[in-house]
Amino acid sequence: MGLMSEALTQILIPLASLVGIGFALLQWFLVSKVRISSGSELEDGYNDMLIEEDVQEAGIDSDAAVAKCAEIQKAISEGATSFLFTEYKYLGIFMVVFGAIIFLFLGSVKKFSTESEPCTFNKENLCRPALANAIFTTIAFFLGALTSALSGFLGMKIATYANARTTLEARKSIGKAFITAFRSGAVMGFLLAADGLLVLYVSINLFKLYYGDDWEGLYESITGYGLGGSSMALFGRVGGGIYTKAADVGADLVGKVEHNIPEDDPRNPAVIADNVGDNVGDIAGMGSDLFGSYAESSCAALFVASISSFGSSHDYSAMSYPLIISSMGIIVCLITTLFATDMFEIKNVTEIEPSLKRQLVISTVLMTVGIAFVSFFTLPSEFTIFDFGMEKVVKNWHIFFCVSIGLWAGLVIGYTTEYYTSNAYSPVQDVADSCRTGAATNVIFGLALGYKSVIIPIFAIAASIYVSFSLAAMYGIAVAALGMLSTIATGLAIDAYGPISDNAGGIAEMAGMSHSIRERTDALDAAGNTTAAIGKGFAIGSAALVSLALFGAYVSRAGIKTVDVLTPKVFIGLIVGAMLPYWFSAMTMKSVGSAALKMVEEVRRQFNSIPGLMEGTAKPDYATCVKISTDASLREMIPPGALVMLTPLIAGTFFGVETLAGVLAGSLVSGVQVAISASNTGGAWDNAKKYIEAGATEHARALGPKGSDAHKAAVIGDTVGDPLKDTSGPSLNILIKLMAVESLVFAPFFATHGGLLFKLL
Amino acid sequence: MGLMSEALTQILIPLASLVGIGFALLQWFLVSKVRISSGSELEDGYNDMLIEEDVQEAGIDSDAAVAKCAEIQKAISEGATSFLFTEYKYLGIFMVVFGAIIFLFLGSVKKFSTESEPCTFNKENLCRPALANAIFTTIAFFLGALTSALSGFLGMKIATYANARTTLEARKSIGKAFITAFRSGAVMGFLLAADGLLVLYVSINLFKLYYGDDWEGLYESITGYGLGGSSMALFGRVGGGIYTKAADVGADLVGKVEHNIPEDDPRNPAVIADNVGDNVGDIAGMGSDLFGSYAESSCAALFVASISSFGSSHDYSAMSYPLIISSMGIIVCLITTLFATDMFEIKNVTEIEPSLKRQLVISTVLMTVGIAFVSFFTLPSEFTIFDFGMEKVVKNWHIFFCVSIGLWAGLVIGYTTEYYTSNAYSPVQDVADSCRTGAATNVIFGLALGYKSVIIPIFAIAASIYVSFSLAAMYGIAVAALGMLSTIATGLAIDAYGPISDNAGGIAEMAGMSHSIRERTDALDAAGNTTAAIGKGFAIGSAALVSLALFGAYVSRAGIKTVDVLTPKVFIGLIVGAMLPYWFSAMTMKSVGSAALKMVEEVRRQFNSIPGLMEGTAKPDYATCVKISTDASLREMIPPGALVMLTPLIAGTFFGVETLAGVLAGSLVSGVQVAISASNTGGAWDNAKKYIEAGATEHARALGPKGSDAHKAAVIGDTVGDPLKDTSGPSLNILIKLMAVESLVFAPFFATHGGLLFKLL
Repeated sequence: MGLMSEALTQILIPLASLVGIGFALLQWFLVSKVRISSGSELEDGYNDMLIEEDVQEAGIDSDAAVAKCAEIQKAISEGATSFLFTEYKYLGIFMVVFGAIIFLFLGSVKKFSTESEPCTFNKENLCRPALANAIFTTIAFFLGALTSALSGFLGMKIATYANARTTLEARKSIGKAFITAFRSGAVMGFLLAADGLLVLYVSINLFKLYYGDDWEGLYESITGYGLGGSSMALFGRVGGGIYTKAADVGADLVGKVEHNIPEDDPRNPAVIADNVGDNVGDIAGMGSDLFGSYAESSCAALFVASISSFGSSHDYSAMSYPLIISSMGIIVCLITTLFATDMFEIKNVTEIEPSLKRQLVISTVLMTVGIAFVSFFTLPSEFTIFDFGMEKVVKNWHIFFCVSIGLWAGLVIGYTTEYYTSNAYSPVQDVADSCRTGAATNVIFGLALGYKSVIIPIFAIAASIYVSFSLAAMYGIAVAALGMLSTIATGLAIDAYGPISDNAGGIAEMAGMSHSIRERTDALDAAGNTTAAIGKGFAIGSAALVSLALFGAYVSRAGIKTVDVLTPKVFIGLIVGAMLPYWFSAMTMKSVGSAALKMVEEVRRQFNSIPGLMEGTAKPDYATCVKISTDASLREMIPPGALVMLTPLIAGTFFGVETLAGVLAGSLVSGVQVAISASNTGGAWDNAKKYIEAGATEHARALGPKGSDAHKAAVIGDTVGDPLKDTSGPSLNILIKLMAVESLVFAPFFATHGGLLFKLL
Repeated sequence: MGLMSEALTQILIPLASLVGIGFALLQWFLVSKVRISSGSELEDGYNDMLIEEDVQEAGIDSDAAVAKCAEIQKAISEGATSFLFTEYKYLGIFMVVFGAIIFLFLGSVKKFSTESEPCTFNKENLCRPALANAIFTTIAFFLGALTSALSGFLGMKIATYANARTTLEARKSIGKAFITAFRSGAVMGFLLAADGLLVLYVSINLFKLYYGDDWEGLYESITGYGLGGSSMALFGRVGGGIYTKAADVGADLVGKVEHNIPEDDPRNPAVIADNVGDNVGDIAGMGSDLFGSYAESSCAALFVASISSFGSSHDYSAMSYPLIISSMGIIVCLITTLFATDMFEIKNVTEIEPSLKRQLVISTVLMTVGIAFVSFFTLPSEFTIFDFGMEKVVKNWHIFFCVSIGLWAGLVIGYTTEYYTSNAYSPVQDVADSCRTGAATNVIFGLALGYKSVIIPIFAIAASIYVSFSLAAMYGIAVAALGMLSTIATGLAIDAYGPISDNAGGIAEMAGMSHSIRERTDALDAAGNTTAAIGKGFAIGSAALVSLALFGAYVSRAGIKTVDVLTPKVFIGLIVGAMLPYWFSAMTMKSVGSAALKMVEEVRRQFNSIPGLMEGTAKPDYATCVKISTDASLREMIPPGALVMLTPLIAGTFFGVETLAGVLAGSLVSGVQVAISASNTGGAWDNAKKYIEAGATEHARALGPKGSDAHKAAVIGDTVGDPLKDTSGPSLNILIKLMAVESLVFAPFFATHGGLLFKLL
């Protein structure tokens, strides 16, 4: 047994969750102090301060600007809320249907018998009936789905609450705007990390009331939590991704390219849809995605632990190790956040990116200490871990290494992503330079950059897999994934910061604020582009580890001893699995393309048919564009969603557990590459364009200014990159994770009834 | 024993080779009857016929046009010959160095001992010393490299011999031009198929003089032939691909986009380099590539057979089954060719594509009968095949199914490729349609099309793998690959037809021929684009099967029992292997991009500095552009080449045989997808552009004409597609094949001395 008592564990986990939630609420309170209703609320000295600190230019029609900001914010918030409600309504139906499938499939494993049975792994113990597992898995599935939806929704609410406030604070100083955006990101990060942990903790304890000492059944059912979280995330990412990019591409193609008006210009009919999209895609989608990864890696670790010595010896504290790591993560991130909000002040735009990057380093260093602490106090000095039918002896410092290497691999991936997507370095500058000869060379260089950016992350992932796999088999992989996600609160904070700043810039433009304010929000946004790419890097890296852990758990649960590439069943699974990311990307990219074409037609129609639109005397019809994005995303998210949800069911039922194992391995090793290259290519194109626009160096000015041939070529690259980096790329994480967790949940069914086709032949 | 005696086998194989060579020479003779020196050679009634059949327009300055064609042909031929000589000079040095490495590595397995040893698989027999295997493998390596170089060189010679002749025949009729281009393609196809077979046959018989009854050692050494062929092919494909696309992209970007002059306009300084590139890249590269596939699949099948019952019972005819299948292929393709050249006559441009597609169907149907015949007469009705340490009982009709499914899978892949890349169908038309909203949507739709086009080929490959693997283990896979390649002579004929027609069109343009002739060559070329895509589909499909067969042979030779994904060593190999195609593509695409940028600068410089160039009164400096392409390709082919050649050596030596097995499996399943999608995306963009230019339908005319915004967007897509379809895509076949055959050749070394890193830890 470890040094920590069960009672202490039972106190610490919920306590950490509550501290996280409390901290999030505190940040929210601080953000809310920025007033966005004008005139009457001068008592906090807001306008005084503004006039005092900033130039007259910005303060002159302060009331009108504030009112305008409030109005735009309201439109964005209402649009996003209404879309998410519609989306969740459809997904609610899907969840009920899929919940029923889970119940029927798992219930049928032992023909809905209510008899207790000998456990699968501990044959001498008696376990609860398979029917109970079916019921509790379904409940866990719903809980996961609800928590995921809540995470996305809360994130969106906070972001739309914060965007106009960031704009208004930008009138005071860059530092204040940064703090507002960053605090709002932190609200989302902490709420999500704490909620995810708390719901999981409470569920385990409630399920335990029924399961008692049958930990095998208990933690098997809990895997439904991960499945629910990830299914919701899939549709959130795909639907949100199509929504945002249809609007973005459509707005850019007509506005920027044809009419030569700036991004986020209020005359562009698709501009509100574009801003709504940032919130439902980048914020809500990303929130659901990372929540899913977190839930799945916890479930994978808990499941493997339950069939290892922790489970058989009923060591609750050691069993809860994954949850305690996450609790420690919340505390570490809380301290890290203070460095950004209270210890340093941003005085200059050049300090933004270093400050965000510093967050990553600080949290990683602190967390390494935290992991050592947790590993030493929670885990016994020696124990055994289930290793595909064998028992592997592991020491507590082995686990420390597993979690730490995951954590540090995340940092390496983050920094590599930054190198390849920030325009401070040569890769993006080379891409910008290639715009001299037009869009074609820009696209060629951008694709090559994306391919190249895969190399270091893959070596980092491979190294962490090798070390953690060798030290502690699949448990090692699962906790390595948890390690990468342990600083999720900070990761999400800097990630959500991006779209909030992007929106803030949009609102500044639409509210007709001065050039100097727009420059500040642009600087915030440019840093946000890079942090968004870093966030995607984390999401993909952790997805790779999580999927492998889930894959291992699936193989254990399905009772497969080896997944031998040299058997035809496995090999065909491998090659078909490696194809799935392409099929999926083909669907999502085509969806964005088609929806964007419709958007372009509508925007062109409005420019042609509404007199005075270009002159700014008439208002465009924003609602029609919002409707096009909404309809397209709801309709188009079904086929890719079905591909991901049905593949494991079809492969498992008709081809059996070995082929499915091949499919999972194939989609994992291929999907990671496609996802990383797509995200980084898109990020690089976006920042190459911003590099030319900003004109900060001699080289950049030679390519610019806005409207030059090189800039036009850069805009084409940016547009191509939109669906790559915000729709297909990030959705692929979920593809690989979701297929793995779904296979794990359905493993008992496949092991009993699967492989129909081969049985018939 | 089978029904065919050893003596008959010894006669039939060389006989079929000689028939193939004879047929190729006959076709060459027929092509040579088209005279390209003008004036004095009227005795064959050539000009009479021309005036008789065609409009006056084309015949008026006949002599001048012929002289001009001859001059251009000479320039292209000299450029291509000089490039290939330079390339082969560098490669010669590389081959000597790599040959030495092979000798040293393999010789060191038993410390250069000259003692005979018990065989690896048949322990009771005595085999020749490892040193002998090292020597003979090195010799086989040189033979393979030489044959590959010869194949590429001959193909290039024929193509440059035929291009101007095709142009001149186009003055008579479309049918005559088609026959000329097709016959020339057939020369290459038959020479290559027959040469490859003959050299392999002779080598085996010469090696046998030393090896005697030690067939294990004999066929192990023969694998060097495949390695030599593929190493040469790698550099040929990469070097040639960079050469041709640097010139093509550079020529297009300045000529078409900036100066609005037609493709292949003689005023464009890069035009000769572009035409030379077609011959060294598409023709010589493709020839070496397919020869490599052919050599490797034969070697893989022979190696597996040698350690199966054919080998241990010394059944020479059954052992030679792969060679007899290839012999039958030559005869079948000969009959098939007659359908195109003698039985039907092309009277209309619309008949070209169906006629070429008919070739595929006819050869496939006839070959199926041929396979049945060979399988029945050559193979015993029942025998055993080595299956990773076990013996699998196989019947001769099992093998018939294996070869046939490979053959038919090739047809399915060919037809799918045609569907996705020909502008007669909706996928390419949709891509063309997306040009309405500019280059960005064109690129998005094109990428999505490429991703989607992967689905059916992968299912076809998976199905053939499943069937042949289940029926006859790795031998089944190897002969399935051979089945796909059995109609290689026809495949190469229709494939080489493409670049020949492309060149013919270029020569017509440069020689200032009339519009109606240019239209004919354009029609030949459009069909050629599709057949080139089909050829790439075949190359990739067969590469996938070949690599798997080689992979199986490697695993057998290295003595690995299972390649279990659930071991850390294998998994890290898998994920890193899946990354390699991205790394490789990043290098090759960047190389093309950089070389194209240089080319653009040179072409711009000439347009700006040579007075009268645009008016056609001054001649451009073609030589400088040729030099840029040459230098770039020779310099830039080294890093990707080194990546491919060194990876197996590093992985095997430092990480051991299991990790290397993972690398091979990963690169195979990932590389196939990247290769197919890259080739088809590029082909689709090219034909979308041609669709708009040709304006054959109402829809196409609405997008056109040349110079419209939609057309400009299509040109950008086409340019992006160039390096995808002609450099990185097709080179990836070789990446996956070459790493596998190299691993097989070095397997004895890795098995003995490999895995240094893990041994040290």
